[in-house]
Amino acid sequence: MNDNTRFLNNRRTDLALEERESFEEDDVEIKGVVLEEEYDEEQNIKITRVEIKDERGAEAMRKPIGTYITIEAPDIAGADEGYHEPVSKLVAKYIEELARGVEGKHVLVAGLGNRSLTADALGPQVVDNLFVTRHLVREFGTEFAKRNKMESMSAISPGVMGQTGMESSEILRGIIEETKPDILVVIDALAARSVSRLNTTIQITDTGISPGAGVGNNRNALNEESLGVQVIALGVPTVVDAATIVQDRMEEALRKRGFSEQEVYQFLSEMTDQDVSNMFVTPKNIDDSIKRISYTISEGINSVFYKAPTAAQS
Amino acid sequence: MNDNTRFLNNRRTDLALEERESFEEDDVEIKGVVLEEEYDEEQNIKITRVEIKDERGAEAMRKPIGTYITIEAPDIAGADEGYHEPVSKLVAKYIEELARGVEGKHVLVAGLGNRSLTADALGPQVVDNLFVTRHLVREFGTEFAKRNKMESMSAISPGVMGQTGMESSEILRGIIEETKPDILVVIDALAARSVSRLNTTIQITDTGISPGAGVGNNRNALNEESLGVQVIALGVPTVVDAATIVQDRMEEALRKRGFSEQEVYQFLSEMTDQDVSNMFVTPKNIDDSIKRISYTISEGINSVFYKAPTAAQS
Amino acid sequence: MNDNTRFLNNRRTDLALEERESFEEDDVEIKGVVLEEEYDEEQNIKITRVEIKDERGAEAMRKPIGTYITIEAPDIAGADEGYHEPVSKLVAKYIEELARGVEGKHVLVAGLGNRSLTADALGPQVVDNLFVTRHLVREFGTEFAKRNKMESMSAISPGVMGQTGMESSEILRGIIEETKPDILVVIDALAARSVSRLNTTIQITDTGISPGAGVGNNRNALNEESLGVQVIALGVPTVVDAATIVQDRMEEALRKRGFSEQEVYQFLSEMTDQDVSNMFVTPKNIDDSIKRISYTISEGINSVFYKAPTAAQS
Amino acid sequence: MNDNTRFLNNRRTDLALEERESFEEDDVEIKGVVLEEEYDEEQNIKITRVEIKDERGAEAMRKPIGTYITIEAPDIAGADEGYHEPVSKLVAKYIEELARGVEGKHVLVAGLGNRSLTADALGPQVVDNLFVTRHLVREFGTEFAKRNKMESMSAISPGVMGQTGMESSEILRGIIEETKPDILVVIDALAARSVSRLNTTIQITDTGISPGAGVGNNRNALNEESLGVQVIALGVPTVVDAATIVQDRMEEALRKRGFSEQEVYQFLSEMTDQDVSNMFVTPKNIDDSIKRISYTISEGINSVFYKAPTAAQS
Repeated sequence: MNDNTRFLNNRRTDLALEERESFEEDDVEIKGVVLEEEYDEEQNIKITRVEIKDERGAEAMRKPIGTYITIEAPDIAGADEGYHEPVSKLVAKYIEELARGVEGKHVLVAGLGNRSLTADALGPQVVDNLFVTRHLVREFGTEFAKRNKMESMSAISPGVMGQTGMESSEILRGIIEETKPDILVVIDALAARSVSRLNTTIQITDTGISPGAGVGNNRNALNEESLGVQVIALGVPTVVDAATIVQDRMEEALRKRGFSEQEVYQFLSEMTDQDVSNMFVTPKNIDDSIKRISYTISEGINSVFYKAPTAAQS
Repeated sequence: MNDNTRFLNNRRTDLALEERESFEEDDVEIKGVVLEEEYDEEQNIKITRVEIKDERGAEAMRKPIGTYITIEAPDIAGADEGYHEPVSKLVAKYIEELARGVEGKHVLVAGLGNRSLTADALGPQVVDNLFVTRHLVREFGTEFAKRNKMESMSAISPGVMGQTGMESSEILRGIIEETKPDILVVIDALAARSVSRLNTTIQITDTGISPGAGVGNNRNALNEESLGVQVIALGVPTVVDAATIVQDRMEEALRKRGFSEQEVYQFLSEMTDQDVSNMFVTPKNIDDSIKRISYTISEGINSVFYKAPTAAQS
Repeated sequence: MNDNTRFLNNRRTDLALEERESFEEDDVEIKGVVLEEEYDEEQNIKITRVEIKDERGAEAMRKPIGTYITIEAPDIAGADEGYHEPVSKLVAKYIEELARGVEGKHVLVAGLGNRSLTADALGPQVVDNLFVTRHLVREFGTEFAKRNKMESMSAISPGVMGQTGMESSEILRGIIEETKPDILVVIDALAARSVSRLNTTIQITDTGISPGAGVGNNRNALNEESLGVQVIALGVPTVVDAATIVQDRMEEALRKRGFSEQEVYQFLSEMTDQDVSNMFVTPKNIDDSIKRISYTISEGINSVFYKAPTAAQS
Repeated sequence: MNDNTRFLNNRRTDLALEERESFEEDDVEIKGVVLEEEYDEEQNIKITRVEIKDERGAEAMRKPIGTYITIEAPDIAGADEGYHEPVSKLVAKYIEELARGVEGKHVLVAGLGNRSLTADALGPQVVDNLFVTRHLVREFGTEFAKRNKMESMSAISPGVMGQTGMESSEILRGIIEETKPDILVVIDALAARSVSRLNTTIQITDTGISPGAGVGNNRNALNEESLGVQVIALGVPTVVDAATIVQDRMEEALRKRGFSEQEVYQFLSEMTDQDVSNMFVTPKNIDDSIKRISYTISEGINSVFYKAPTAAQS
């Protein structure tokens, strides 16, 4: 693989899966990166597990060392409620796996993003459907919690910097310092490269969220190193960067017409994204999709941290 | 102008202004279309008036015969509240002009679009800030209304077909039949071609809204012919079609590299929009922009139909 | 029963059940009114059926002739999701019974009330969770609908007069005229007398909604007589009138201290409600309750008019 | 004043003004409490300043030592926009006074309360309309801020315990620890005794918010002592406690009928609030009132901490 190709692929995706796909020969092992796939034909759900093992892998993938699990469920966009249960069970399974056990732990869930921007409202909408329990556990005691199979869960939607004047990381660091959770689960809307992954894919990782990963901007990162607690990040791609979509379509068109690698490279490097920076592409039915998938994720999280909701009511 | 060029420009815009710009030689008169421009340097506001005079003009512009006034106010996206007043005054002025007088008339305002999709929420948000008066006029009488310089205003946000199972035109036709307004003002989010026009431009027209204009789909149109009342449509472009943005960037890149008209045409005609159909491009701060500009429009409408709000309170 | 008692009980309730309870001797038959009760001990759900048979009954009950079914499910306020299913099944059962069959019918659901006032948002929230199908049936045909066990459903939240300047009845009459449904289902928040019924009780009736029932204000009524289509009204008490709660507590206190019927009557008739008119009493957790019970009702309605949602997706 | 009377008046109000009124002889000085009144006849705005000077005053008033300024503006509920300006100017004036200067200070504004419960949404709605600047000041520097007369403002709506599992005080303490503001301004919906004060009255105090004041529950208090920063609390009464309204009406009725102090006392002490605890009374148009008054307060706060918004844009 030559550098030019790498440049062309140097477009924004928050999915480790897509980063991995950007390498041309799909079958060749990238050093330091392990890829596993599973497919449930009946449910039409594909699970991909990308493990970045060492620094070499991290550099190649431009993502931190850790485990990235992707649930691809193309049918989840549809209206069938029955389909959501297997997906929410998978969400629960992988959160529990990455958390290495949740019993007796206090979890803080943070719904990142802007509540009033549909494509960015995933995090706040997930939080709106959580069944928080920390105040109950504190009031009625751990015996009560144990009897009801209830861990201690708290949750917050910190808003975005344009609304608060603060970084989400500042707000969360303060709350963590004050309330001492064992695990932070962060929910966020992601950017994908492929339009077909929008609102159908859930990525769960134990690496947290690292804006501008590797650039030393660690203060704004939400990960174990910066926060001192275990961090699990759960994201759904809801947008594609407008510049990325333009470049991808153009590259595809040029290749189809027989342009050489070199020519494609030259062509694209002359383009400017100026007027589409700060623009994103999103589907027209994004409101329905977000409502649906945020509900599925809430169900998954609720079921991890409160295993017997029925009993507790009675 | 050859046909190829026309084809290339055959992309979606709801602005008569942009349709007019798509003709190559800007200075040449298009038969049946009159263009006038005005520029207020101090306020940095440009007014363009496109009059489509006859069928020939309508065909060339692919828009119905009538008047299209566009207010371009690039600074309206900023935070300065003082700037909104001149824009809302212009909105009021042109509504009043196109309505050919409002005294003693009953106006129904319809805020089209999907309240839960930020880029489509312009109409409902405008309606949320209106000061409706029809029930007051009915209760306290026309003498009261006259004394308070209050016309009769009603308003509705009919929702979108995916939420209601009905066309907006069906809902509005029923309400008009029942409540007999003299004027319908429809507010809607539009699609533009140029990213720079998003959330900075207001189009006001006396032609109403004609989905698939000229294709005989008149039943869903919202215009005087189909509804039997005067219709004024007020729109703000909030999105660019994703396929349009891809094609426009590509065309620009190809031209810059010296491709001939014919080659550009061939190139683009081979592209497929498949995976970006039903996708739109919108700025990241669309929530703020919509909140701001819908408030400006509400103020404009309120001031047309209720000229002395202060007096009425006392 | 003397007149004084009747006066004391002359306070606002939208529940036929509570109107019936206001008669002192519960066991004595009121002429023209039949009462039946059922109790499901396991689920702790009580069903009461009040049938007003004739004019005499209507006058005594101050409600129109027809059937009033009340589902009292005190546990529905709790967080247990499993509990909602039996309630939503009962909702479906009684809608289907009162509609005397739904096959091949087109239903319009109207969510009355003010979306931005929590205690009044029941109707709009129910509509937000409906799976409307009318546009699908029109696009894909009745064969498609039949195969998928889908009736034609449309829905609207018309807003309140302070927002629209129009009566809900005007808006709905227009839409009905235009779209010709066979059945109108109206959802509305109700006023109860008893605090304990708030958010735990669902009333379903085939009499529609008659503001100021019997006062000749029929134009604003939503019933078969005024609209020309079958009307089923579904309501949940979410508030108690502030004046009612004050009078009830006072009456109770006076009786407890041995005041005579006559004295209680005199005492209360001297009170003025002036400063609590236009005030209502509602529980602090009304937001959770409304969210929960509106979801239960949506599920019930969806299951009546779309019996095989899963199949339709595949 | 005898103890019985005091007991009768021992009902919930968050307004120092109403606490003061509960003392029978209005003209007699309460030791340790200074009362000043001002009335602007033209604007129909009354300003009351209650200063609690020492422990004796604090005990009598059941409120912490400090200054309580109340703006009573009965006309603010109306639709006249012109009226809001003088009120927002008063809000600005008293915040600046109680803050003893704001130049060069960093303020954090906290909008307490439940966004999805209309009567409790004042705080979040105020925050939604703030113009936060802390991130701008950090990015562009203090020179830029100074030139634009912009102080550093951040803001958060922490939600309520049922949504987050955390006390607001925990969340705010963490954020304050992390971001080090000089002043905390807390906005909250209050409970009043008098229905006529709902949504027409603004209380501004330098004592912060002390739930269960004086009961040693200091950990949940939001005041200078517990947080280590200056705290200004700004509140608007939006509800009356249901038990309070019942007792007040009953007391009034009993007195009118000539019951003695002793008898009234006995009567009320036998009543139970059981079924109206956790219930509140609120006006039917609370959504409009909250929208309006929260906008007025936002304007006031914005103008204190950003004195030249226009200049900054240019």
